[in-house]
Amino acid sequence: MSLVVQKFGGSSVADAASVKRVAKRIVEYRRAGHEVVVVVSAMGDSTDELIDLAEQVSPVPPARELDMLLTAGERISMAVLAMAIANLGYEAQSFTGSQAGVITDEQFGRARIIDVTPGRIRSALDEGNVAIVAGFQGVSQTTKNITTLGRGGSDTTAVALAAALEADVCEIYTDVDGVFTADPRIVPAASKIDMISYEEMLEMAASGAKVLMLRCVEYARRYQVPVHVRSSFSQHQGTWVTDKPIPEDLRPTPAVAGAAAETEESMEQAIISGVAHDRSEAKLTIVGVPDTPGKAAEIFKTVAAQEIDIDMIVQNISTKDPGRTDISFTLPASDGAKAITALENAKGSIGFESMQYDDQIGKLSVIGAGMRSHPGVTATLFEALSNAGINIDMISTSEIRISVVTRAELLDEAVRAAHTAYGLDAEEIEAIVYGGTGR
Amino acid sequence: MSLVVQKFGGSSVADAASVKRVAKRIVEYRRAGHEVVVVVSAMGDSTDELIDLAEQVSPVPPARELDMLLTAGERISMAVLAMAIANLGYEAQSFTGSQAGVITDEQFGRARIIDVTPGRIRSALDEGNVAIVAGFQGVSQTTKNITTLGRGGSDTTAVALAAALEADVCEIYTDVDGVFTADPRIVPAASKIDMISYEEMLEMAASGAKVLMLRCVEYARRYQVPVHVRSSFSQHQGTWVTDKPIPEDLRPTPAVAGAAAETEESMEQAIISGVAHDRSEAKLTIVGVPDTPGKAAEIFKTVAAQEIDIDMIVQNISTKDPGRTDISFTLPASDGAKAITALENAKGSIGFESMQYDDQIGKLSVIGAGMRSHPGVTATLFEALSNAGINIDMISTSEIRISVVTRAELLDEAVRAAHTAYGLDAEEIEAIVYGGTGR
Repeated sequence: MSLVVQKFGGSSVADAASVKRVAKRIVEYRRAGHEVVVVVSAMGDSTDELIDLAEQVSPVPPARELDMLLTAGERISMAVLAMAIANLGYEAQSFTGSQAGVITDEQFGRARIIDVTPGRIRSALDEGNVAIVAGFQGVSQTTKNITTLGRGGSDTTAVALAAALEADVCEIYTDVDGVFTADPRIVPAASKIDMISYEEMLEMAASGAKVLMLRCVEYARRYQVPVHVRSSFSQHQGTWVTDKPIPEDLRPTPAVAGAAAETEESMEQAIISGVAHDRSEAKLTIVGVPDTPGKAAEIFKTVAAQEIDIDMIVQNISTKDPGRTDISFTLPASDGAKAITALENAKGSIGFESMQYDDQIGKLSVIGAGMRSHPGVTATLFEALSNAGINIDMISTSEIRISVVTRAELLDEAVRAAHTAYGLDAEEIEAIVYGGTGR
Repeated sequence: MSLVVQKFGGSSVADAASVKRVAKRIVEYRRAGHEVVVVVSAMGDSTDELIDLAEQVSPVPPARELDMLLTAGERISMAVLAMAIANLGYEAQSFTGSQAGVITDEQFGRARIIDVTPGRIRSALDEGNVAIVAGFQGVSQTTKNITTLGRGGSDTTAVALAAALEADVCEIYTDVDGVFTADPRIVPAASKIDMISYEEMLEMAASGAKVLMLRCVEYARRYQVPVHVRSSFSQHQGTWVTDKPIPEDLRPTPAVAGAAAETEESMEQAIISGVAHDRSEAKLTIVGVPDTPGKAAEIFKTVAAQEIDIDMIVQNISTKDPGRTDISFTLPASDGAKAITALENAKGSIGFESMQYDDQIGKLSVIGAGMRSHPGVTATLFEALSNAGINIDMISTSEIRISVVTRAELLDEAVRAAHTAYGLDAEEIEAIVYGGTGR
């Protein structure tokens, strides 16, 4: 018997029919003898509808009240899911984030989990219930106000509960089959990754792979929670994110197992796990910064004060004035206006000349634990991009990742070129899609 | 400065526009220097929509989960109302029943309040907030499960909070102007009652007057909470339910005050406060009950075991068999089938012959504290009904109430006859409606 935490997103519980389908899936696990905790998001578009309602009465709703409002969404989905399970003859009880012991700080709208005390969930399981828990929400430790965790919050709830309950696996059900070597919409030859380490998954998430949110993977790594990302529309094995072997009774069925074993073997040899891309960033260049100590620090302090995350940074001698430098960095495009305003206000004290803003950039990242022991990985990327006629604008690397910035309109082509260059293209699909081109 | 608890029902907060209107009304009180606690129901038909959703996944949803689901309704309305108040420049915080300290027993769907510990509400008021509280819901003392209070629950929440906070008044906003001497849809000459005692209001509510639920009035009487029932669509004074003088700073404005003072005087002389009616009951006659001790007890124990409230009871010698009796009683028509089934199962042990069920009955009640000291009140009613050609089927009386059962189709006429006989018809309306008839 294993303890399984399963997370279903809003699209998996969009209406009564989908709720019933999910309930059947959950009951299969219960019938197989597993203990099951389910984390559920709000049904379909209901969160957006609540936000609409809020905006009808207030252009800037108070954050405390917005969180109170939004948490109604999961309250509905979790109760309805519990009913659907009960209707199949299994006991189920639903719990709010607060009841499940999801303790957070007090940052409304993007609270961080600081503790999980799942005593009531443990009791519910002991009494034979499926425990249904509201994702995305918690209660603040100091004021006992209701909080929400922000984007991807339900995944984080699931992993945090799995950690606190020492679950054997945290299954994240989604509308794709797992984590892919690249976005299949861009790279038709992309294939599903069967197993990936936390470290690599972290880099993938940080580099724009959208299947799992960064904070959820961070949490999973810290507490060594095996995560299984899989489709809610099929019974296929998805992608296991773990550094350990897959728990025995949750392993693929024999037919699938063969495939997985084979892949595990090939994983050994793979240098690169995947190619991620990100279109959501912009580049801001601060032109003519006085080349004196502390100026760069002033710039980044100004941006950090706006709670804006900076990604890649490049500093060059200014082309115009050798006594000055140009500093470029990338940041979320959605924070562009805020950064420009803050820097404009600090222009006098920092003493730079001008700013250039460019949101037509794309970031490509190649991720693989194998590159640690394989020199020449970077050269392969540069060569592939060069052959495809793609200019590299910025570069940054970590131990297991190389990221480059290109023009936005060349990003898709760059992703395809890299995917091919590292031998990631699935052969049968390649044959169909690229048949005869010799690539 | 007074502490005012205001309760707004679902129709008062049906959409964003109504929520804004209610927010303005609340802010007027805040601006006048009062501390304000608002109890709010779910928006419009949202509770019915949630019940529909539940029924789509389960024909008989588990009660615990149904309560969890339904409480999402007030969570939405209270947060949106708090936003609307904040948008007018006043601080507001919303609280669930649990956060507001509404402690109940564990009867899901019809929980009873057993304690109110409004510490967080008191703090919110002390910090200058309008406190918005979810009506209709609480948290069970033993299991900490979420509960709902059943029909009229939000009114009870409001009165219970008013009691715990020692509020100066509990205002119940509704879609009528207050409590009337009779239902104006039946008696066009009915007039609004300006003040009524708890005792009389209790009898009115128990006799079918729908403006306030019985349990809410019981709670108000027990804790001596002055209740002001009034329209959310006008600024007019409504009906005060209290045994004490109206708090000074909540008294009507001078223009209205004159009218109220005048009415208070006339209240002194009124024998009868109002005429209530109830169409929701049915009569069940148990024919041929053995006339031996304990048989009546057996019958009523059988019915009570189904948690069915019995109202009026009549016992007669059986017309067919002098050694047997017939026992008739009234009960909610909605419980009719349940009572018949239970009694049918007990038929052998009780030993009665047959049952007759009649749901085409109507109950008329005449209520007035003045009847204590006025003999002849009963005679007036019987004479009026007799003159109108209306037969009386059953009779029951309390110290301040006379109730009679008639045929359902004669009930409206009976109510009008009684209203006229006790001199309750408003003259100006009478002149229009009954002009020239001399009644």
